Amino acid sequence: MLTKSHIKLITSLSQKKFRQQEQLFVVEGIKGINEFLNSSFKLHLLFSTEAIFNAETIIISEKELQKISNLKSPNRALAVFYIPKKKHVEPNGLILALDDVRDPGNLGTIIRLCDWFGIKKLVCSNATVDCYNSKVVQATMGSLARIDIQYVDLQAYLSDYKNDVFGTFMDGNNIYSETLPDKGIIVMGNEANGISEEIEKLVTKKLCIPRFGDLKATESLNVATATSIVLSEFKRE
Amino acid sequence: MLTKSHIKLITSLSQKKFRQQEQLFVVEGIKGINEFLNSSFKLHLLFSTEAIFNAETIIISEKELQKISNLKSPNRALAVFYIPKKKHVEPNGLILALDDVRDPGNLGTIIRLCDWFGIKKLVCSNATVDCYNSKVVQATMGSLARIDIQYVDLQAYLSDYKNDVFGTFMDGNNIYSETLPDKGIIVMGNEANGISEEIEKLVTKKLCIPRFGDLKATESLNVATATSIVLSEFKRE
Repeated sequence: MLTKSHIKLITSLSQKKFRQQEQLFVVEGIKGINEFLNSSFKLHLLFSTEAIFNAETIIISEKELQKISNLKSPNRALAVFYIPKKKHVEPNGLILALDDVRDPGNLGTIIRLCDWFGIKKLVCSNATVDCYNSKVVQATMGSLARIDIQYVDLQAYLSDYKNDVFGTFMDGNNIYSETLPDKGIIVMGNEANGISEEIEKLVTKKLCIPRFGDLKATESLNVATATSIVLSEFKRE
Repeated sequence: MLTKSHIKLITSLSQKKFRQQEQLFVVEGIKGINEFLNSSFKLHLLFSTEAIFNAETIIISEKELQKISNLKSPNRALAVFYIPKKKHVEPNGLILALDDVRDPGNLGTIIRLCDWFGIKKLVCSNATVDCYNSKVVQATMGSLARIDIQYVDLQAYLSDYKNDVFGTFMDGNNIYSETLPDKGIIVMGNEANGISEEIEKLVTKKLCIPRFGDLKATESLNVATATSIVLSEFKRE
């Protein structure tokens, strides 16, 4: 049965403050929930209009689901999982770092790209949108369960890093003609402002994605599409 | 002054039926409106909370703007432009074709990518989301004004085409090791189903974007990020 305290809890989890306090987050839809059930994430509560999961389920009506869902067209189920206490491990290979990415859809897409390109670790500045935001979780399509995501003081983190730090700038070297290593940190910047001045100082190799269209016209690539081009270039050889 | 008939017109333009009937569409925000004002598009009506444009402006209050805007936080202006009667020209180079892309954000991002990569022509199946949908217009950031977009019976269009038709499939040739021409049509498929069977039959060169992550886990790339990788590969040399 869906109780008042369930509703209160789930509603509160739309705010980062309460996600951090409760160490819980919401996943919606059958596919996404199954990805998390099949991962190391621990389930707290599972609500569904049908008994379709291999886990303890509270059966609720369509109307009740509508009440707790963040989606316009809820997809049969909503689950609450625990935010894992991860031991963050520094991998040997490539690390992606985000300098204040604010849009949940962009972060979700970038997490999915990390998964596709085998990037095991994503480092986010503290001002980057929370990866347990429901819109991010939705956009990751389950990839969130497979990437080690860490929120840090990015300036301090990069200052301590020993290998090269890459970033894209208008005046960087053409990414298509550079030999790119299989080790290093790639920094992607904020949607409106790009990489901040403080972080730019810590970039050791500046790259540029050249534009092929009307030079005056197209202003910039979306941060998620730029990330896909950069990761593709790093991984292609 | 914002009249009742203005409100009625603008509200109606959220539907494709009325956009086609009136041959008008809505652009919001100062930047986007300026991009269209500086293009060959013809202005019908311009509403703004300030006299900041180099065009005849109807000054309205914040509250009135809120009433006609599709955005949660309207950005000071809303304009109505005429849908141009374009003469569609077949370019010599690369053409991008979309087989039923349904998400407005994806179409907007793809139009922006065409602009970045100098793809002059975008051909959309009739079931692809309308490019004058306000969410598409918003996501293009003005690129819509620079790309020739045509809605067609995609099967018939590809059947008539003389050069190679490219598409990405799981069993295609690794895109990173192919020599890619500067002429041809690149087809990208629907968000859920990829390229349809009828269109697949007309693809003459199958390509594959290899995945580098956990092979069982990551299911697919978002169509916009896949498009960015494919266009980057075609254009990089």
